[in-house]
Amino acid sequence: MHASQIAEDYPSVTKDSDALAAAKLLAEHRLPGIVVTDGDRVPRAVLPASQVVRFLVPGYVQDDPSLAGVLSESVADRVADALRGKTVGELLPKSTSKPVMPVVRADDTVIEVAALMARCRCPLVAVVDGTQMVGVITASRLLQVALAAT
Amino acid sequence: MHASQIAEDYPSVTKDSDALAAAKLLAEHRLPGIVVTDGDRVPRAVLPASQVVRFLVPGYVQDDPSLAGVLSESVADRVADALRGKTVGELLPKSTSKPVMPVVRADDTVIEVAALMARCRCPLVAVVDGTQMVGVITASRLLQVALAAT
Repeated sequence: MHASQIAEDYPSVTKDSDALAAAKLLAEHRLPGIVVTDGDRVPRAVLPASQVVRFLVPGYVQDDPSLAGVLSESVADRVADALRGKTVGELLPKSTSKPVMPVVRADDTVIEVAALMARCRCPLVAVVDGTQMVGVITASRLLQVALAAT
Repeated sequence: MHASQIAEDYPSVTKDSDALAAAKLLAEHRLPGIVVTDGDRVPRAVLPASQVVRFLVPGYVQDDPSLAGVLSESVADRVADALRGKTVGELLPKSTSKPVMPVVRADDTVIEVAALMARCRCPLVAVVDGTQMVGVITASRLLQVALAAT
């Protein structure tokens, strides 16, 4: 069983992709994060779902969390409007250190994927063939594969 | 829309639960982590899926990652055997600091859940009614709900 056989295929996003479309991919595929590639499908960063959630929260609530409770439900139910018109690049964490982009090769074994995931404590790795991404493997997907044999 | 309406219900685990059964829940529900409760269903800790993956990797491979590549595929395909006979408590990260257990109330709004998730950068929160857990909300589930209105 190789990484390419475990990998799940779904459309990749780039920094210029629509933020709302990226959020929909996370929601539909129930992913803990999504891989951001450059124009050549080379994986460059992971955008965690919890980071996208951050943009659902109005700035004044981030400054004063107690305000969250007094917002009307109709406002609370329209939070996704905040993602409209933004790009994926605008959602990425502003980090001073270069983000770690965990990558496995298409022919890596389950153990090799597990070893990388354990080392980086990451919930998601990109699978590359050469330099191009061919899919992703989440920690829960890896468990699914490992447990199928039990 | 309240937290209790968004929450997803699935069997909880305790420190004494079977590690293999907990891994199966993570795999089946495609969760980034699972909440560990005490005997009274009070949420106490989150066990991340990437932490469970760590136990799929033999100790000698953790010590020398280059050995992962030389393991035969038949061994690599039987990694789940390592979880047999262990408890959830044995899988939990050994941390000196008390783990953060993110919790929202059943009547919290989408904005309140999002605000907590954004603050703790956590992919999963427990929903409690009083002190007892009634379900969990993942970041991707929250996005699913927020985007349903778009």
